[in-house]
Amino acid sequence: MASGGRHRSERGYNTNGRAGSFHHPLAEVAVSLGSDESLRVTYLVRATAAGIAARAEALMLEQTVELPRATAGRDPWVVAHILGNVESIRPAGDDLHRVTITQPLATAAGDPAELLNVLFGNSSLQPDVVLADVELPEPAFAWLPGPRAGIAGLRELAGVTGRPLLATALKPMGLRPDRLAALCGLFARAGMDLIKDDHGLADHPFCPFEARVEACLRAAEDAGRETGRVAVYVPNLIGAPDRIARQLEFARAAGAKAAMISPMVTGLPTLAQFASQSDGLPLFAHPSFGGVLRAEAPALFGKLFRWFGADAVIFPHAGGRFAYSRETCGALAAALRAEHRCVRPAFPAPAGGIKVERVAELLEFYGPDAILLIGGSLYEGAEGLFERTRALVERVARAAAEAVS
Amino acid sequence: MASGGRHRSERGYNTNGRAGSFHHPLAEVAVSLGSDESLRVTYLVRATAAGIAARAEALMLEQTVELPRATAGRDPWVVAHILGNVESIRPAGDDLHRVTITQPLATAAGDPAELLNVLFGNSSLQPDVVLADVELPEPAFAWLPGPRAGIAGLRELAGVTGRPLLATALKPMGLRPDRLAALCGLFARAGMDLIKDDHGLADHPFCPFEARVEACLRAAEDAGRETGRVAVYVPNLIGAPDRIARQLEFARAAGAKAAMISPMVTGLPTLAQFASQSDGLPLFAHPSFGGVLRAEAPALFGKLFRWFGADAVIFPHAGGRFAYSRETCGALAAALRAEHRCVRPAFPAPAGGIKVERVAELLEFYGPDAILLIGGSLYEGAEGLFERTRALVERVARAAAEAVS
Repeated sequence: MASGGRHRSERGYNTNGRAGSFHHPLAEVAVSLGSDESLRVTYLVRATAAGIAARAEALMLEQTVELPRATAGRDPWVVAHILGNVESIRPAGDDLHRVTITQPLATAAGDPAELLNVLFGNSSLQPDVVLADVELPEPAFAWLPGPRAGIAGLRELAGVTGRPLLATALKPMGLRPDRLAALCGLFARAGMDLIKDDHGLADHPFCPFEARVEACLRAAEDAGRETGRVAVYVPNLIGAPDRIARQLEFARAAGAKAAMISPMVTGLPTLAQFASQSDGLPLFAHPSFGGVLRAEAPALFGKLFRWFGADAVIFPHAGGRFAYSRETCGALAAALRAEHRCVRPAFPAPAGGIKVERVAELLEFYGPDAILLIGGSLYEGAEGLFERTRALVERVARAAAEAVS
Repeated sequence: MASGGRHRSERGYNTNGRAGSFHHPLAEVAVSLGSDESLRVTYLVRATAAGIAARAEALMLEQTVELPRATAGRDPWVVAHILGNVESIRPAGDDLHRVTITQPLATAAGDPAELLNVLFGNSSLQPDVVLADVELPEPAFAWLPGPRAGIAGLRELAGVTGRPLLATALKPMGLRPDRLAALCGLFARAGMDLIKDDHGLADHPFCPFEARVEACLRAAEDAGRETGRVAVYVPNLIGAPDRIARQLEFARAAGAKAAMISPMVTGLPTLAQFASQSDGLPLFAHPSFGGVLRAEAPALFGKLFRWFGADAVIFPHAGGRFAYSRETCGALAAALRAEHRCVRPAFPAPAGGIKVERVAELLEFYGPDAILLIGGSLYEGAEGLFERTRALVERVARAAAEAVS
């Protein structure tokens, strides 16, 4: 994977002079197709200086017509309305270039799935190409749902302002619903804001989805009666689309206020479908299976995940069990929170082996608009899970108070 | 991307001594969970000889419990039924090792989506790890559909024995349904066996799905009345799951005998869902968006695509616009066609900028059980598309006859 992808500023976006309005569900907004709006996509391409112009042209053709220009060009309508342009080629290192292509938005057919085809379909298979950045014009957000709740909505759900939200994960796989619910209640009483299933908790016979969700929701409510504040339990949705639909319906009916999905396991269009559903829930996105793709993390997790409907995106923070650089993490968080006239900001949720001791660093690095997801390191040590959690909660509250004063 | 992944032989599979039976739909077979069957997954891991044992242990823990062994091990049931074992560690180059892990099949919860989590969920995000191979015990194929038609079924559909099937693609994006249908009719009259949509043909306003499918099916039928044999037109399904369901229903009702899907765009579990549908169609799988940085192509396209339900898998042949090696292509094809007691063989469909002139080489490389997918190079040259197609068809027929004689 290409490291250190820098996030491009949003300056190129045509976002001035229009009234901002969140739209949801997407069906309410007319799809603007056949417009002359363009999408802009940037790739890191390995090629010599002498060869890059031809390589960039071939890359542009690959995304849509899959034919040489001479062949595709026999039809003037195709040239005018389908073919893109190589907008810029900039050196990015030894035999490395940043190639930016603009292309009619209409090629995406108003379809989140087709968008992936025209951004990085066949070219994803070419080892000299990395998807580095994507910019979409406003009409794209007539059919891309974006976050349902976003940062403001999740803050409202959790009842937290002015500081990062604290989240943890119920684990390990193998525990029965009553054991996971007991953990959920403990974390809730200790003051966690969000308590999510581990992404590996599925619908195992030893821990059925329905029993787990019911038990954990009730445990969070019971704890809420003690503490005066109900922690948000976030069940993990996993399966083929029909199964996820049933899980989502069950969770909502049982009282869940948010849910988690792994968009690269389920497919990004599946995320978009459930994010667009009128009676759906805010969705946390887990990066599981997402490392397979030759795309920079900020583009995939920071932009596409948000545009396809994630309200919060979990990703590995630098220095944990995963090798993301601080620069990548910063760019990913910036992409999730970047101002956008059509799409709500989404929460960055750094995770992945973060030690409790690193909380001060995380607070400083991400600032208040983050969800700090600390799972495994709380579990370490045989005793005192409640006390360790409580200490973490107080540390975050204290740091937030100091930042304000 | 790791190059040159070698395909492991299937010898490790426990496939002897049982009656072979294809099962479909999956709902007919009882799910064997809580059994002590194991899945086996092999990774290429970058680590020093001194560090590899600890790294392999951490990798195994990451897939399920996401906790250190000391923490996860507090629950003996978890240790006995969830944790895997590092089965072998073999040197595979400088600071490179092949790590094989076995793990209870029950961790996958009888769910194709959860299988991806436990095979390559979090670990896909770790840059020192490449998914190299997967082996599943027979009970997994109670809930993984495998190909509906497979090689034998698609041969029957196309009415072709003893030689590779010839396929081409309708393109470019931008043509209206009548233009694409005219191409479809031309290819059919020239003797193509299979005529598929380009994977970028979606539900564009300038070429709606329904109009295109109707027009192309009718064109193939009309040509069939002339030639006495109806070419199989394969429409491209693309969208979120609900949209694909509508497209599939329309295509089937209109008379389509097969369809295409891009499983990495739509999500592999979506493929499994439609492959499991009792009134579904045989499915061609396109590799779009599947450019894998950290999974070897034979494991992803050769095994997972087949197991999740693809009847034919399209992939770039060596020497085209994509950089797959001959070794990778051979391993991919071998994985698709490997004998398996529970899963039908699937067709390899090499593609990706294959020149007409290379057909002899492809015939020799893949043998008869292949679909040769030749698109763009047929279109090159302003005139004579029918004659070029006809010549290609005759060349393949001749080569097949020579091989037999």
